[in-house]
Amino acid sequence: MTTYTHQTAPTQFVEANGIRFAYRRFGKVSGLPLVFNMHFIGTMDHWDPAVTDGFANDREVILFNNAGVSSSSGEVPTNCQDMGANAIAFIKTLGLKKVDVLGFSLGGFVAQEITLQAPDLVRRLVLIHSGPRGGKDFASFTPEAQKILGAVYDEPDHLWLHAFFTTSEASQAAGRAFLKRFRLRNKDRDPEVDGNVAPAQVQAIAKWGAPQERPFEYLSAITQPTLVVNGGRDVLIYPVNSFILQQNLPNAQLISYPDSSHAAHSQYPELFVRHVSMFLSAKDVWAA
Amino acid sequence: MTTYTHQTAPTQFVEANGIRFAYRRFGKVSGLPLVFNMHFIGTMDHWDPAVTDGFANDREVILFNNAGVSSSSGEVPTNCQDMGANAIAFIKTLGLKKVDVLGFSLGGFVAQEITLQAPDLVRRLVLIHSGPRGGKDFASFTPEAQKILGAVYDEPDHLWLHAFFTTSEASQAAGRAFLKRFRLRNKDRDPEVDGNVAPAQVQAIAKWGAPQERPFEYLSAITQPTLVVNGGRDVLIYPVNSFILQQNLPNAQLISYPDSSHAAHSQYPELFVRHVSMFLSAKDVWAA
Repeated sequence: MTTYTHQTAPTQFVEANGIRFAYRRFGKVSGLPLVFNMHFIGTMDHWDPAVTDGFANDREVILFNNAGVSSSSGEVPTNCQDMGANAIAFIKTLGLKKVDVLGFSLGGFVAQEITLQAPDLVRRLVLIHSGPRGGKDFASFTPEAQKILGAVYDEPDHLWLHAFFTTSEASQAAGRAFLKRFRLRNKDRDPEVDGNVAPAQVQAIAKWGAPQERPFEYLSAITQPTLVVNGGRDVLIYPVNSFILQQNLPNAQLISYPDSSHAAHSQYPELFVRHVSMFLSAKDVWAA
Repeated sequence: MTTYTHQTAPTQFVEANGIRFAYRRFGKVSGLPLVFNMHFIGTMDHWDPAVTDGFANDREVILFNNAGVSSSSGEVPTNCQDMGANAIAFIKTLGLKKVDVLGFSLGGFVAQEITLQAPDLVRRLVLIHSGPRGGKDFASFTPEAQKILGAVYDEPDHLWLHAFFTTSEASQAAGRAFLKRFRLRNKDRDPEVDGNVAPAQVQAIAKWGAPQERPFEYLSAITQPTLVVNGGRDVLIYPVNSFILQQNLPNAQLISYPDSSHAAHSQYPELFVRHVSMFLSAKDVWAA
Protein backbone atom coordinates (compact mmCIF):
# COMPACT_ATOMS: atom_id res chain seq x y z
CA MET A 1 0.00 0.00 0.00
CA THR A 2 1.37 3.38 -0.99
CA THR A 3 0.97 6.18 1.49
CA TYR A 4 0.07 8.60 -1.27
CA THR A 5 -3.31 10.30 -1.39
CA HIS A 6 -5.08 12.49 -3.92
CA GLN A 7 -3.17 15.49 -2.50
CA THR A 8 0.28 13.93 -2.42
CA ALA A 9 0.46 11.45 -5.31
CA PRO A 10 3.23 12.68 -7.60
CA THR A 11 2.53 13.29 -11.26
CA GLN A 12 4.36 10.64 -13.25
CA PHE A 13 4.87 10.27 -16.98
CA VAL A 14 4.84 7.40 -19.43
CA GLU A 15 5.08 7.26 -23.23
CA ALA A 16 2.74 5.47 -25.61
CA ASN A 17 1.39 6.18 -29.11
CA GLY A 18 3.98 8.98 -29.32
CA ILE A 19 2.27 10.75 -26.42
CA ARG A 20 3.78 11.54 -23.05
CA PHE A 21 0.93 10.80 -20.67
CA ALA A 22 0.78 12.43 -17.24
CA TYR A 23 -0.76 10.23 -14.56
CA ARG A 24 -1.06 9.70 -10.83
CA ARG A 25 -1.42 6.33 -9.16
CA PHE A 26 -2.25 5.73 -5.51
CA GLY A 27 -4.32 3.65 -3.11
CA LYS A 28 -4.32 0.17 -1.71
CA VAL A 29 -2.74 -2.41 -4.00
CA SER A 30 -5.54 -4.96 -4.07
CA GLY A 31 -7.38 -6.43 -7.02
CA LEU A 32 -7.65 -4.38 -10.19
CA PRO A 33 -6.88 -0.67 -10.46
CA LEU A 34 -9.72 1.71 -11.29
CA VAL A 35 -8.82 4.00 -14.21
CA PHE A 36 -10.57 7.39 -14.22
CA ASN A 37 -11.56 9.17 -17.46
CA MET A 38 -12.18 12.90 -17.10
CA HIS A 39 -14.91 15.24 -18.37
CA PHE A 40 -14.80 18.16 -20.82
CA ILE A 41 -11.86 20.56 -20.18
CA GLY A 42 -10.97 18.76 -16.95
CA THR A 43 -7.54 17.70 -15.70
CA MET A 44 -6.47 15.25 -12.99
CA ASP A 45 -7.07 18.03 -10.47
CA HIS A 46 -10.76 18.11 -11.36
CA TRP A 47 -11.39 14.78 -9.67
CA ASP A 48 -13.00 15.05 -6.26
CA PRO A 49 -10.60 13.91 -3.49
CA ALA A 50 -13.58 12.65 -1.48
CA VAL A 51 -14.24 10.23 -4.32
CA THR A 52 -10.71 9.27 -5.34
CA ASP A 53 -9.44 8.86 -1.77
CA GLY A 54 -12.68 7.07 -0.93
CA PHE A 55 -11.90 4.44 -3.54
CA ALA A 56 -8.18 4.43 -2.66
CA ASN A 57 -9.01 2.92 0.73
CA ASP A 58 -9.81 -0.34 -1.03
CA ARG A 59 -8.16 -0.28 -4.44
CA GLU A 60 -5.60 1.42 -6.65
CA VAL A 61 -6.76 4.57 -8.37
CA ILE A 62 -5.20 5.75 -11.63
CA LEU A 63 -5.86 9.30 -12.82
CA PHE A 64 -4.44 10.52 -16.13
CA ASN A 65 -4.69 13.26 -18.67
CA ASN A 66 -5.57 11.98 -22.11
CA ALA A 67 -3.62 13.20 -25.17
CA GLY A 68 -3.33 16.96 -25.48
CA VAL A 69 -4.88 17.66 -22.09
CA SER A 70 -2.91 19.75 -19.58
CA SER A 71 0.34 18.04 -18.56
CA SER A 72 0.04 15.34 -21.25
CA SER A 73 1.62 15.98 -24.63
CA GLY A 74 0.04 15.44 -28.04
CA GLU A 75 -3.16 16.68 -29.58
CA VAL A 76 -6.73 16.23 -28.44
CA PRO A 77 -8.45 14.07 -31.07
CA THR A 78 -11.70 15.41 -32.47
CA ASN A 79 -13.51 12.10 -31.93
CA CYS A 80 -14.07 9.76 -29.02
CA GLN A 81 -12.76 6.68 -30.84
CA ASP A 82 -9.23 8.12 -30.97
CA MET A 83 -9.50 9.28 -27.37
CA GLY A 84 -10.38 5.71 -26.48
CA ALA A 85 -7.45 4.34 -28.48
CA ASN A 86 -5.08 6.73 -26.69
CA ALA A 87 -6.47 5.68 -23.31
CA ILE A 88 -5.94 2.01 -24.20
CA ALA A 89 -2.33 2.72 -25.21
CA PHE A 90 -1.79 4.51 -21.89
CA ILE A 91 -3.27 1.67 -19.81
CA LYS A 92 -1.34 -1.02 -21.66
CA THR A 93 1.97 0.79 -21.41
CA LEU A 94 1.60 0.62 -17.62
CA GLY A 95 1.76 -3.16 -18.09
CA LEU A 96 -1.85 -3.66 -17.05
CA LYS A 97 -3.75 -6.53 -18.64
CA LYS A 98 -7.11 -5.92 -16.95
CA VAL A 99 -8.59 -2.91 -15.19
CA ASP A 100 -11.88 -1.46 -14.01
CA VAL A 101 -12.78 1.71 -15.87
CA LEU A 102 -14.73 4.76 -14.72
CA GLY A 103 -15.75 7.58 -17.03
CA PHE A 104 -17.38 10.89 -16.18
CA SER A 105 -19.45 12.63 -18.91
CA LEU A 106 -17.15 12.88 -21.97
CA GLY A 107 -14.93 10.48 -20.01
CA GLY A 108 -17.87 8.07 -20.07
CA PHE A 109 -17.92 8.19 -23.87
CA VAL A 110 -14.20 7.42 -23.83
CA ALA A 111 -14.75 4.63 -21.30
CA GLN A 112 -17.28 3.05 -23.68
CA GLU A 113 -14.76 3.31 -26.51
CA ILE A 114 -12.07 1.67 -24.38
CA THR A 115 -14.44 -1.20 -23.68
CA LEU A 116 -15.53 -1.60 -27.29
CA GLN A 117 -11.99 -1.48 -28.69
CA ALA A 118 -10.27 -3.55 -25.98
CA PRO A 119 -12.97 -5.69 -24.38
CA ASP A 120 -10.41 -7.99 -22.75
CA LEU A 121 -8.81 -5.06 -20.95
CA VAL A 122 -11.96 -4.10 -19.03
CA ARG A 123 -13.47 -6.13 -16.21
CA ARG A 124 -16.20 -3.76 -14.99
CA LEU A 125 -17.34 -0.36 -16.17
CA VAL A 126 -18.72 2.67 -14.31
CA LEU A 127 -20.39 5.41 -16.39
CA ILE A 128 -21.27 8.54 -14.47
CA HIS A 129 -23.29 11.44 -15.89
CA SER A 130 -22.73 10.07 -19.36
CA GLY A 131 -24.78 8.86 -22.31
CA PRO A 132 -24.90 6.76 -25.45
CA ARG A 133 -23.91 7.61 -29.02
CA GLY A 134 -26.80 9.51 -30.56
CA GLY A 135 -28.17 10.26 -27.08
CA LYS A 136 -30.77 12.88 -26.33
CA ASP A 137 -29.77 16.54 -26.58
CA PHE A 138 -26.04 16.63 -26.06
CA ALA A 139 -24.66 16.70 -29.62
CA SER A 140 -24.69 20.44 -29.14
CA PHE A 141 -24.70 21.53 -25.53
CA THR A 142 -28.09 21.75 -23.83
CA PRO A 143 -29.57 25.25 -23.44
CA GLU A 144 -28.66 25.10 -19.74
CA ALA A 145 -25.08 24.08 -20.56
CA GLN A 146 -24.70 26.90 -23.08
CA LYS A 147 -25.82 29.43 -20.52
CA ILE A 148 -23.60 28.03 -17.76
CA LEU A 149 -20.51 27.62 -19.94
CA GLY A 150 -21.00 31.04 -21.56
CA ALA A 151 -21.23 33.03 -18.31
CA VAL A 152 -18.44 34.86 -16.49
CA TYR A 153 -17.75 34.06 -12.84
CA ASP A 154 -16.02 36.03 -10.05
CA GLU A 155 -13.67 33.14 -9.61
CA PRO A 156 -13.23 30.86 -12.63
CA ASP A 157 -13.87 27.67 -10.71
CA HIS A 158 -17.28 28.94 -9.60
CA LEU A 159 -18.29 27.64 -13.01
CA TRP A 160 -18.52 24.24 -11.38
CA LEU A 161 -21.06 25.39 -8.79
CA HIS A 162 -23.42 26.04 -11.68
CA ALA A 163 -22.42 23.25 -14.03
CA PHE A 164 -22.37 20.48 -11.44
CA PHE A 165 -24.95 21.32 -8.77
CA THR A 166 -28.64 22.21 -8.72
CA THR A 167 -29.96 25.54 -7.50
CA SER A 168 -31.19 24.04 -4.21
CA GLU A 169 -29.55 25.21 -1.01
CA ALA A 170 -28.40 21.69 -0.16
CA SER A 171 -26.84 21.13 -3.57
CA GLN A 172 -25.08 24.51 -3.59
CA ALA A 173 -23.69 23.82 -0.10
CA ALA A 174 -22.38 20.49 -1.39
CA GLY A 175 -20.90 22.39 -4.32
CA ARG A 176 -19.02 24.78 -2.07
CA ALA A 177 -17.68 21.84 -0.07
CA PHE A 178 -16.57 20.23 -3.34
CA LEU A 179 -14.78 23.42 -4.41
CA LYS A 180 -12.87 23.47 -1.13
CA ARG A 181 -11.75 19.87 -1.62
CA PHE A 182 -10.96 20.51 -5.26
CA ARG A 183 -8.61 23.36 -4.34
CA LEU A 184 -6.78 21.52 -1.56
CA ARG A 185 -3.91 20.07 -3.57
CA ASN A 186 -1.40 22.88 -3.56
CA LYS A 187 1.74 21.31 -4.99
CA ASP A 188 2.32 19.77 -8.40
CA ARG A 189 -1.10 20.81 -9.69
CA ASP A 190 -1.96 20.34 -13.34
CA PRO A 191 -1.95 23.43 -15.53
CA GLU A 192 -5.42 24.35 -16.77
CA VAL A 193 -6.04 23.13 -20.31
CA ASP A 194 -4.92 25.32 -23.19
CA GLY A 195 -7.19 26.90 -25.79
CA ASN A 196 -6.98 23.94 -28.17
CA VAL A 197 -8.71 21.51 -25.84
CA ALA A 198 -12.27 22.80 -25.72
CA PRO A 199 -12.79 23.10 -29.51
CA ALA A 200 -11.48 19.58 -30.16
CA GLN A 201 -13.52 18.09 -27.33
CA VAL A 202 -16.64 19.94 -28.49
CA GLN A 203 -16.19 18.33 -31.91
CA ALA A 204 -15.77 14.92 -30.35
CA ILE A 205 -18.91 15.36 -28.23
CA ALA A 206 -20.87 16.57 -31.27
CA LYS A 207 -19.87 13.52 -33.28
CA TRP A 208 -20.64 11.14 -30.41
CA GLY A 209 -24.06 12.67 -29.81
CA ALA A 210 -25.01 13.17 -33.46
CA PRO A 211 -28.36 11.58 -34.40
CA GLN A 212 -27.85 8.29 -36.19
CA GLU A 213 -29.84 5.22 -37.18
CA ARG A 214 -30.44 2.65 -34.48
CA PRO A 215 -27.93 4.52 -32.34
CA PHE A 216 -28.05 2.23 -29.34
CA GLU A 217 -27.38 -1.09 -31.04
CA TYR A 218 -23.65 -0.82 -30.40
CA LEU A 219 -24.32 -1.05 -26.66
CA SER A 220 -25.12 -4.75 -27.00
CA ALA A 221 -21.37 -5.31 -27.53
CA ILE A 222 -20.56 -3.97 -24.06
CA THR A 223 -21.22 -7.12 -22.06
CA GLN A 224 -19.12 -6.14 -19.06
CA PRO A 225 -21.06 -5.59 -15.84
CA THR A 226 -21.73 -1.86 -15.91
CA LEU A 227 -22.90 0.57 -13.26
CA VAL A 228 -24.55 3.70 -14.65
CA VAL A 229 -24.81 6.59 -12.20
CA ASN A 230 -26.30 10.03 -12.59
CA GLY A 231 -27.91 13.01 -10.94
CA GLY A 232 -31.66 13.01 -11.48
CA ARG A 233 -31.61 16.74 -12.34
CA ASP A 234 -28.57 16.73 -14.61
CA VAL A 235 -28.87 19.73 -16.95
CA LEU A 236 -25.68 19.05 -18.95
CA ILE A 237 -26.46 15.49 -20.01
CA TYR A 238 -30.12 14.86 -19.37
CA PRO A 239 -30.90 11.89 -17.08
CA VAL A 240 -32.81 10.06 -19.79
CA ASN A 241 -29.43 9.26 -21.33
CA SER A 242 -28.48 7.16 -18.30
CA PHE A 243 -31.85 5.45 -18.56
CA ILE A 244 -31.14 4.68 -22.22
CA LEU A 245 -27.75 3.24 -21.29
CA GLN A 246 -29.28 0.93 -18.67
CA GLN A 247 -32.06 -0.14 -21.02
CA ASN A 248 -29.71 -1.01 -23.87
CA LEU A 249 -26.62 -2.35 -22.14
CA PRO A 250 -27.00 -6.11 -21.64
CA ASN A 251 -25.69 -6.15 -18.08
CA ALA A 252 -26.14 -2.78 -16.41
CA GLN A 253 -27.44 -1.37 -13.16
CA LEU A 254 -28.58 2.25 -12.88
CA ILE A 255 -28.41 4.40 -9.77
CA SER A 256 -29.92 7.87 -9.99
CA TYR A 257 -29.63 10.33 -7.10
CA PRO A 258 -32.10 13.04 -6.02
CA ASP A 259 -31.69 16.82 -6.32
CA SER A 260 -28.36 16.57 -8.11
CA SER A 261 -27.04 17.66 -11.47
CA HIS A 262 -23.83 16.76 -13.30
CA ALA A 263 -21.83 15.76 -10.19
CA ALA A 264 -24.06 13.66 -7.95
CA HIS A 265 -20.90 11.77 -6.96
CA SER A 266 -19.52 14.96 -5.43
CA GLN A 267 -22.82 15.82 -3.81
CA TYR A 268 -23.12 12.41 -2.11
CA PRO A 269 -19.51 11.21 -2.20
CA GLU A 270 -19.77 8.68 0.65
CA LEU A 271 -22.92 7.09 -0.73
CA PHE A 272 -21.50 7.07 -4.25
CA VAL A 273 -18.22 5.46 -3.17
CA ARG A 274 -20.13 2.87 -1.18
CA HIS A 275 -22.48 2.02 -4.05
CA VAL A 276 -19.67 1.77 -6.59
CA SER A 277 -17.43 -0.17 -4.20
CA MET A 278 -20.23 -2.70 -3.66
CA PHE A 279 -20.42 -3.07 -7.43
CA LEU A 280 -16.66 -3.37 -7.95
CA SER A 281 -15.97 -5.60 -4.95
CA ALA A 282 -18.77 -8.14 -5.28
CA LYS A 283 -17.39 -11.52 -6.25
CA ASP A 284 -20.66 -12.40 -7.95
CA VAL A 285 -21.33 -8.97 -9.37
CA TRP A 286 -25.08 -8.66 -8.78
CA ALA A 287 -24.95 -10.29 -5.38
CA ALA A 288 -24.24 -8.23 -2.30
CA MET B 1 -36.10 -9.26 19.40
CA THR B 2 -38.66 -11.89 18.51
CA THR B 3 -37.41 -15.26 17.38
CA TYR B 4 -40.03 -15.43 14.66
CA THR B 5 -39.09 -15.58 11.01
CA HIS B 6 -41.04 -15.41 7.77
CA GLN B 7 -41.81 -19.12 8.15
CA THR B 8 -42.85 -19.10 11.78
CA ALA B 9 -44.46 -15.71 12.45
CA PRO B 10 -48.06 -16.41 13.47
CA THR B 11 -50.90 -14.75 11.61
CA GLN B 12 -52.49 -12.23 13.96
CA PHE B 13 -55.65 -10.18 13.59
CA VAL B 14 -56.65 -6.64 14.41
CA GLU B 15 -59.82 -4.65 13.67
CA ALA B 16 -60.05 -1.21 12.09
CA ASN B 17 -62.49 0.50 9.70
CA GLY B 18 -64.81 -2.46 10.29
CA ILE B 19 -62.25 -4.78 8.74
CA ARG B 20 -60.46 -7.67 10.45
CA PHE B 21 -56.94 -7.36 9.12
CA ALA B 22 -54.64 -10.39 9.06
CA TYR B 23 -50.99 -9.54 9.66
CA ARG B 24 -47.63 -10.96 10.68
CA ARG B 25 -44.97 -9.05 12.56
CA PHE B 26 -41.42 -10.22 13.15
CA GLY B 27 -37.79 -9.12 13.15
CA LYS B 28 -35.47 -7.11 15.33
CA VAL B 29 -37.22 -4.42 17.36
CA SER B 30 -35.09 -1.45 16.40
CA GLY B 31 -36.12 1.85 14.89
CA LEU B 32 -39.26 1.97 12.77
CA PRO B 33 -41.09 -1.05 11.40
CA LEU B 34 -41.20 -1.55 7.64
CA VAL B 35 -44.78 -2.13 6.41
CA PHE B 36 -45.09 -4.21 3.22
CA ASN B 37 -47.85 -3.61 0.66
CA MET B 38 -48.51 -6.52 -1.69
CA HIS B 39 -49.03 -6.78 -5.45
CA PHE B 40 -52.05 -7.85 -7.53
CA ILE B 41 -53.76 -11.03 -6.20
CA GLY B 42 -50.94 -11.60 -3.70
CA THR B 43 -51.20 -12.57 -0.04
CA MET B 44 -48.68 -12.39 2.82
CA ASP B 45 -47.30 -15.69 1.55
CA HIS B 46 -46.29 -14.08 -1.73
CA TRP B 47 -43.49 -12.11 -0.07
CA ASP B 48 -40.04 -13.57 -0.61
CA PRO B 49 -38.55 -14.91 2.66
CA ALA B 50 -35.07 -13.97 1.42
CA VAL B 51 -36.26 -10.37 1.38
CA THR B 52 -38.45 -10.26 4.49
CA ASP B 53 -36.01 -12.23 6.66
CA GLY B 54 -33.18 -10.18 5.17
CA PHE B 55 -34.79 -7.00 6.49
CA ALA B 56 -35.86 -8.69 9.74
CA ASN B 57 -32.19 -9.00 10.75
CA ASP B 58 -32.14 -5.24 11.32
CA ARG B 59 -35.73 -4.08 11.75
CA GLU B 60 -39.31 -5.11 12.36
CA VAL B 61 -41.21 -6.31 9.33
CA ILE B 62 -45.00 -6.06 9.14
CA LEU B 63 -46.85 -8.01 6.45
CA PHE B 64 -50.63 -7.72 6.11
CA ASN B 65 -53.49 -8.48 3.80
CA ASN B 66 -55.43 -5.39 2.86
CA ALA B 67 -59.24 -5.40 3.01
CA GLY B 68 -60.91 -8.30 1.21
CA VAL B 69 -57.65 -10.11 0.47
CA SER B 70 -57.24 -13.71 1.66
CA SER B 71 -57.37 -13.96 5.45
CA SER B 72 -58.52 -10.34 5.92
CA SER B 73 -62.25 -9.61 5.96
CA GLY B 74 -64.07 -6.88 4.08
CA GLU B 75 -64.22 -5.99 0.41
CA VAL B 76 -61.45 -5.05 -1.95
CA PRO B 77 -62.02 -1.40 -2.94
CA THR B 78 -62.07 -0.65 -6.64
CA ASN B 79 -59.68 2.26 -6.25
CA CYS B 80 -56.25 2.79 -4.73
CA GLN B 81 -57.32 5.72 -2.55
CA ASP B 82 -59.59 3.49 -0.46
CA MET B 83 -56.92 0.79 -0.33
CA GLY B 84 -54.58 3.43 1.05
CA ALA B 85 -57.15 4.57 3.61
CA ASN B 86 -57.62 0.97 4.77
CA ALA B 87 -53.86 0.50 5.07
CA ILE B 88 -53.60 3.66 7.16
CA ALA B 89 -56.36 2.43 9.48
CA PHE B 90 -54.54 -0.87 9.85
CA ILE B 91 -51.19 0.76 10.67
CA LYS B 92 -52.71 3.21 13.16
CA THR B 93 -54.68 0.55 14.96
CA LEU B 94 -51.38 -1.16 15.76
CA GLY B 95 -50.56 1.99 17.73
CA LEU B 96 -47.84 3.04 15.33
CA LYS B 97 -47.25 6.78 14.83
CA LYS B 98 -44.48 6.52 12.24
CA VAL B 99 -43.36 3.73 9.93
CA ASP B 100 -41.33 3.07 6.82
CA VAL B 101 -43.48 1.85 3.94
CA LEU B 102 -42.63 -0.50 1.09
CA GLY B 103 -44.98 -1.17 -1.82
CA PHE B 104 -44.62 -3.67 -4.64
CA SER B 105 -46.43 -2.95 -7.94
CA LEU B 106 -50.10 -2.31 -6.99
CA GLY B 107 -48.77 -2.18 -3.44
CA GLY B 108 -46.60 0.72 -4.60
CA PHE B 109 -49.70 2.63 -5.69
CA VAL B 110 -51.19 1.97 -2.26
CA ALA B 111 -47.94 3.05 -0.59
CA GLN B 112 -48.13 6.35 -2.46
CA GLU B 113 -51.72 6.79 -1.29
CA ILE B 114 -50.72 6.08 2.31
CA THR B 115 -48.05 8.76 2.05
CA LEU B 116 -50.34 11.32 0.42
CA GLN B 117 -53.19 10.77 2.86
CA ALA B 118 -51.13 10.41 6.05
CA PRO B 119 -47.82 12.16 5.40
CA ASP B 120 -46.93 12.26 9.10
CA LEU B 121 -47.22 8.50 9.34
CA VAL B 122 -44.48 7.80 6.79
CA ARG B 123 -40.80 8.43 7.35
CA ARG B 124 -39.29 6.81 4.23
CA LEU B 125 -40.85 5.14 1.24
CA VAL B 126 -39.70 2.25 -0.97
CA LEU B 127 -41.52 1.75 -4.30
CA ILE B 128 -40.58 -1.41 -6.15
CA HIS B 129 -41.76 -2.29 -9.66
CA SER B 130 -44.38 0.41 -9.41
CA GLY B 131 -45.39 3.58 -11.21
CA PRO B 132 -47.18 6.91 -11.05
CA ARG B 133 -50.83 7.76 -11.62
CA GLY B 134 -51.34 8.02 -15.36
CA GLY B 135 -48.11 6.10 -15.94
CA LYS B 136 -47.15 4.51 -19.21
CA ASP B 137 -49.05 1.42 -20.35
CA PHE B 138 -50.45 -0.14 -17.24
CA ALA B 139 -54.04 1.17 -17.11
CA SER B 140 -54.87 -2.01 -18.96
CA PHE B 141 -52.30 -4.75 -18.59
CA THR B 142 -49.37 -4.67 -21.00
CA PRO B 143 -49.51 -7.14 -23.91
CA GLU B 144 -46.90 -9.24 -22.11
CA ALA B 145 -48.92 -9.22 -18.89
CA GLN B 146 -52.11 -10.23 -20.71
CA LYS B 147 -50.33 -13.18 -22.26
CA ILE B 148 -48.68 -14.26 -19.00
CA LEU B 149 -51.78 -13.83 -16.84
CA GLY B 150 -54.00 -15.51 -19.44
CA ALA B 151 -51.91 -18.69 -19.81
CA VAL B 152 -52.39 -22.01 -18.02
CA TYR B 153 -49.47 -23.51 -16.08
CA ASP B 154 -48.71 -27.09 -14.97
CA GLU B 155 -48.52 -25.83 -11.43
CA PRO B 156 -50.40 -22.62 -10.68
CA ASP B 157 -47.48 -20.87 -9.04
CA HIS B 158 -45.37 -21.33 -12.18
CA LEU B 159 -47.22 -18.19 -13.22
CA TRP B 160 -44.64 -16.28 -11.21
CA LEU B 161 -41.73 -17.71 -13.21
CA HIS B 162 -43.16 -15.92 -16.22
CA ALA B 163 -44.61 -12.84 -14.57
CA PHE B 164 -41.60 -12.03 -12.42
CA PHE B 165 -38.48 -13.21 -14.25
CA THR B 166 -36.98 -12.71 -17.69
CA THR B 167 -36.48 -15.52 -20.18
CA SER B 168 -32.71 -15.65 -19.53
CA GLU B 169 -31.30 -18.77 -17.97
CA ALA B 170 -29.97 -16.85 -14.98
CA SER B 171 -33.28 -15.14 -14.32
CA GLN B 172 -35.27 -18.36 -14.65
CA ALA B 173 -32.88 -20.11 -12.25
CA ALA B 174 -33.43 -17.26 -9.78
CA GLY B 175 -37.15 -17.72 -10.34
CA ARG B 176 -37.03 -21.39 -9.46
CA ALA B 177 -35.06 -20.57 -6.31
CA PHE B 178 -37.70 -17.97 -5.44
CA LEU B 179 -40.50 -20.51 -5.90
CA LYS B 180 -38.76 -22.89 -3.52
CA ARG B 181 -38.47 -20.19 -0.87
CA PHE B 182 -42.03 -19.06 -1.51
CA ARG B 183 -43.37 -22.57 -0.83
CA LEU B 184 -41.34 -23.17 2.33
CA ARG B 185 -43.84 -21.93 4.89
CA ASN B 186 -45.99 -24.99 5.48
CA LYS B 187 -48.14 -24.07 8.48
CA ASP B 188 -50.64 -21.26 8.84
CA ARG B 189 -50.42 -20.27 5.18
CA ASP B 190 -52.82 -17.72 3.77
CA PRO B 191 -55.64 -19.02 1.59
CA GLU B 192 -55.30 -17.95 -2.04
CA VAL B 193 -57.47 -14.92 -2.83
CA ASP B 194 -61.10 -15.53 -3.82
CA GLY B 195 -62.65 -14.67 -7.15
CA ASN B 196 -63.68 -11.17 -6.10
CA VAL B 197 -60.17 -9.89 -5.61
CA ALA B 198 -58.79 -9.79 -9.15
CA PRO B 199 -61.73 -7.88 -10.73
CA ALA B 200 -61.70 -5.21 -8.02
CA GLN B 201 -57.93 -4.82 -8.16
CA VAL B 202 -58.01 -4.64 -11.95
CA GLN B 203 -60.45 -1.75 -11.66
CA ALA B 204 -58.24 -0.01 -9.14
CA ILE B 205 -55.18 -0.42 -11.36
CA ALA B 206 -57.12 0.85 -14.37
CA LYS B 207 -58.21 3.99 -12.52
CA TRP B 208 -54.72 4.61 -11.15
CA GLY B 209 -53.11 4.23 -14.57
CA ALA B 210 -55.78 6.06 -16.57
CA PRO B 211 -54.43 8.91 -18.71
CA GLN B 212 -55.02 12.26 -17.07
CA GLU B 213 -53.86 15.86 -17.38
CA ARG B 214 -50.51 16.67 -15.81
CA PRO B 215 -50.59 13.25 -14.18
CA PHE B 216 -47.32 13.54 -12.29
CA GLU B 217 -47.91 16.81 -10.46
CA TYR B 218 -49.27 15.01 -7.41
CA LEU B 219 -45.84 13.48 -6.85
CA SER B 220 -44.47 16.83 -5.66
CA ALA B 221 -46.50 16.29 -2.47
CA ILE B 222 -44.52 13.17 -1.59
CA THR B 223 -41.53 14.81 0.04
CA GLN B 224 -40.40 11.78 2.02
CA PRO B 225 -37.07 10.33 1.00
CA THR B 226 -38.05 7.65 -1.50
CA LEU B 227 -36.17 4.76 -3.01
CA VAL B 228 -37.55 3.58 -6.34
CA VAL B 229 -36.40 0.10 -7.41
CA ASN B 230 -37.16 -1.91 -10.51
CA GLY B 231 -36.04 -4.56 -12.92
CA GLY B 232 -34.71 -3.03 -16.11
CA ARG B 233 -36.67 -5.53 -18.24
CA ASP B 234 -39.95 -5.35 -16.35
CA VAL B 235 -42.72 -6.39 -18.77
CA LEU B 236 -45.65 -5.89 -16.35
CA ILE B 237 -44.94 -2.29 -15.42
CA TYR B 238 -42.47 -0.89 -17.89
CA PRO B 239 -39.24 0.51 -16.39
CA VAL B 240 -39.92 3.99 -17.70
CA ASN B 241 -42.52 4.29 -14.94
CA SER B 242 -39.81 4.05 -12.29
CA PHE B 243 -37.84 6.66 -14.20
CA ILE B 244 -40.90 8.94 -14.20
CA LEU B 245 -41.27 8.45 -10.44
CA GLN B 246 -37.64 9.41 -9.81
CA GLN B 247 -37.86 12.40 -12.12
CA ASN B 248 -41.02 13.79 -10.52
CA LEU B 249 -40.63 12.90 -6.85
CA PRO B 250 -38.78 15.72 -5.08
CA ASN B 251 -36.49 13.47 -3.05
CA ALA B 252 -36.06 10.10 -4.72
CA GLN B 253 -33.26 7.74 -5.66
CA LEU B 254 -33.71 5.13 -8.40
CA ILE B 255 -31.98 1.76 -8.55
CA SER B 256 -32.60 -0.35 -11.64
CA TYR B 257 -31.20 -3.89 -11.93
CA PRO B 258 -30.06 -5.76 -15.05
CA ASP B 259 -31.77 -8.71 -16.76
CA SER B 260 -34.73 -8.69 -14.38
CA SER B 261 -38.45 -8.22 -14.77
CA HIS B 262 -41.18 -7.64 -12.17
CA ALA B 263 -39.27 -9.14 -9.21
CA ALA B 264 -35.69 -7.92 -9.34
CA HIS B 265 -35.76 -7.99 -5.53
CA SER B 266 -36.24 -11.76 -5.67
CA GLN B 267 -33.62 -12.17 -8.36
CA TYR B 268 -30.96 -10.27 -6.39
CA PRO B 269 -32.35 -10.49 -2.85
CA GLU B 270 -29.08 -9.90 -1.01
CA LEU B 271 -28.14 -6.89 -3.10
CA PHE B 272 -31.69 -5.51 -2.87
CA VAL B 273 -31.83 -5.90 0.91
CA ARG B 274 -28.44 -4.27 1.22
CA HIS B 275 -29.35 -1.31 -1.00
CA VAL B 276 -32.68 -0.73 0.74
CA SER B 277 -31.16 -1.20 4.20
CA MET B 278 -28.55 1.45 3.39
CA PHE B 279 -31.38 3.77 2.42
CA LEU B 280 -33.49 3.02 5.50
CA SER B 281 -30.64 2.97 8.02
CA ALA B 282 -28.71 6.07 6.96
CA LYS B 283 -29.02 8.77 9.59
CA ASP B 284 -28.55 11.44 6.95
CA VAL B 285 -30.53 9.72 4.25
CA TRP B 286 -28.39 10.40 1.19
CA ALA B 287 -25.13 9.87 3.04
CA ALA B 288 -23.63 6.43 3.34
